[in-house]
This record gives sequence, structure tokens and C-alpha cells, in this order.
Amino acid sequence: MSSIISDLQNRYTVKQYDASKKISKDDMKVIEEALRLSVSSINSQPWKFIIIESDEAKQRFSDTFANKFQFNQKHAKDASAIILFCHNPYYTKNDYQKVIDADFAVGRINPDISPERNRDEKLGAYVFAELNTDNFGFNGNWTKAQTYIAFGNIIHTLARMNIGSTSMEGIDIDLVKQSFSDELGGFECHVALAIGYSKKEEDYNAKLPKSRLPEKEVIINL
Amino acid sequence: MSSIISDLQNRYTVKQYDASKKISKDDMKVIEEALRLSVSSINSQPWKFIIIESDEAKQRFSDTFANKFQFNQKHAKDASAIILFCHNPYYTKNDYQKVIDADFAVGRINPDISPERNRDEKLGAYVFAELNTDNFGFNGNWTKAQTYIAFGNIIHTLARMNIGSTSMEGIDIDLVKQSFSDELGGFECHVALAIGYSKKEEDYNAKLPKSRLPEKEVIINL
Repeated sequence: MSSIISDLQNRYTVKQYDASKKISKDDMKVIEEALRLSVSSINSQPWKFIIIESDEAKQRFSDTFANKFQFNQKHAKDASAIILFCHNPYYTKNDYQKVIDADFAVGRINPDISPERNRDEKLGAYVFAELNTDNFGFNGNWTKAQTYIAFGNIIHTLARMNIGSTSMEGIDIDLVKQSFSDELGGFECHVALAIGYSKKEEDYNAKLPKSRLPEKEVIINL
Repeated sequence: MSSIISDLQNRYTVKQYDASKKISKDDMKVIEEALRLSVSSINSQPWKFIIIESDEAKQRFSDTFANKFQFNQKHAKDASAIILFCHNPYYTKNDYQKVIDADFAVGRINPDISPERNRDEKLGAYVFAELNTDNFGFNGNWTKAQTYIAFGNIIHTLARMNIGSTSMEGIDIDLVKQSFSDELGGFECHVALAIGYSKKEEDYNAKLPKSRLPEKEVIINL
């Protein structure tokens, strides 16, 4: 079997972490860099990734489960880290200027035309954001979708590294917004990912077979 | 450097495909199976992946660029294949029953409780879809976001396989809906991915440095 398929087959949603096992610093660096390298429409990168590893921040995250989704609360402290996937619900042309600045910084420009024309041509791509922006400047459905690309990228990355993970849309969006308002700076977090190592003997999900819809339901070959 | 980071560093958006180079059948099988194994909230899999490889289907896709985004049209015929990422904008409890049926088919059940109780408990997870469903039954922003997880997964998969790709939100959603209405069956396609091999000598993007926002802009360590 292809190593790609075996990686994806072997991963499962961790239901019980081993709180004594931490992801190494080197591995965390790979995870952070893989997040940063994620693909997005027009390279917009309308995201922030908040990485929770300290006891203080874990406590803060744990407290956001006060009202709902308590079944996920234990991961806040047992997992090695939690990644908050945050998107900018009001992504602007000014935000996109930062992407263009980064292009200039590494020389991702057309040398045959002036810097001004380079900038104008690059800004033209912002039309893809505009197509997804309402009259109030809200484009959060679009930026959120981009953030889910990073999510899919990191799930695959972790599968390769043999590090366990738990996807959590089961978080209290409002309490997370309150508790992490300084770090979010107006961004929103609709999904978090706990990462670490499963306590296999207590993790019922480690033993269950993987389940997906049959190929004929989801793949159409033309 | 980690092979994960070098894979992600080396990938780039192909701007010119070599129409003479086809992805092998074996590789296409890996890609299709990787798509199917993608992660989604409550394992909802509210998606379909339409794989375009035949001349007839490529012509049909090419014709959808009649009105806009003509800069992407050439990929319709030059790329080895195009994947249409399609989401169900009205995902229902009945759709989720199919996921539960698949669980039963592989024995992903709790043997200590009755099949009926297994089914009830599994259906309870549908609350995550409900939280994202409006009064008209529309939950397309949520199902679209799930589909972008599959997108991120496959971008990483292709990077590992050294196969080039081009993300295309630049498609005519309405014309694609018309031209592929039989295959879509009510689903919508908001993003496509051309895949194949770059014609490097004519692909300006093959030579440009990769650009991303600096780490301090997107990663916050707590």
C-alpha cells in the first residue's frame, strides 16, 4: 500500500490523550512551519494559529468549556498542545498588502515591470476576496474556508508524523472569543485541534475500524 | 530539513501544464483514495469529487470559462485531470444516516449496546450540522468548509507525490452547475483543482521563490 494511504488509514481521532507525553520542540517547529506554508486562495493567508502549550493557556482554554461541549474539555489539559485555527472575518485590501509586501521581501516579483505595476497586478487578485465580501465588509465564510485548507494540511502532516489529533468544532466560540480576545485581535476561532499522543489502552477509538462512505458515493470519474 | 517541510516548500501553483504528461492510473487511485479518507466534522463527508479526465469532460469543463476567468481555461485541457470539489448545500439527517450505515458495515459500533442505541447515539452528533443550518435548511457554508479540509489534504498528498496542481476558485460557479448538473445532483462546486505535470521551461511560477507571511504574523505561541 502507498505510504500516503497507510498514513491516512492509520490516523484516528484521539479520544484519550496521555498527558505525560509531550510533542518534542523540533516536531512542534515542523507543525508550525507546515501551518505557515498552507495554501490559500490568492495566497491570502487570512489566518492566525494560536498554539496553546503553557499550563496558564491550557487552563484558560479549559475554562471556555464551562457552558457546553464538556466532552472535549479534558483534551484542553491532557493533549500536548491545542491549535486554535482563527480566521479574519473582515479581510481587507490592506491585509492583502502585507502578502504583497512579503512577495517583495523574497523577490517574488516580475523583474520586467516596475514595482508599482507589480503591486497593481498583484492587488488585482483581491477581486477573489471581493467576490466573497458582503456590503458590510464581511467575508468570514470565505476566510474560514481558507483556514480549513490549513486544517486539512496539518491533519495530513500529523498523520505523517504519527502524532494523534482531535478535531474540535465542539468549542464555545463566544467564550473562546472572550478569553483569547487579546490574541485574536478581531479574528474568530470556529475550530480547534488538540494534538499529542493517545493513551491507547484507554482510548476506545484506537481500536475501532475506520469508516468512510464507499467510493461510489463520493468519487465520480468522467 | 524535514521531508514534510521540503515537500511543502517545493510545491508551487502550476501556471503551464505539459499536456503530454499524464498522471498514472496507480497514482490517480492514490489521489482518489486520499480524497475519500479526508477528515470532516462528525465524519459527515458532505462532498463529492468529480474527476475529469476524458476529452469529452475536459471540453465540457473548458466551455464553462466562456464568460469569465479565462486565464484558467487552458488548464482544462492541458492538465492531466481536474478535480471538482463539490459540497452539499442542504446536508440532512438522511444524508448522515448513510455515514452511520457505513459505520455498521465495517463494525464501527459499540458492541455493549443495541444497534438501535448505537444509531441514536451516532445521530446525536448531527447537532453540529444543525448548529450550522439556517431556517431554510441551508448549511452550505459549513459543508463547503469541510470540503476545503479535503482540499488541504489533497494539496499535501500531491506535494508528497511530486505532482503539480493549480487551485481554482476562478471558475464560473453557475456555468459549472449547469454543465455538470447531472453529476452534481444538487451539490455545488466552488473550487476546482487542476493536477498534472508542469511544463517547467514555460512555467514562470516554477522559478519564483515561495512567499508566505512571516511566522510572527501568523503563529502565536501561548
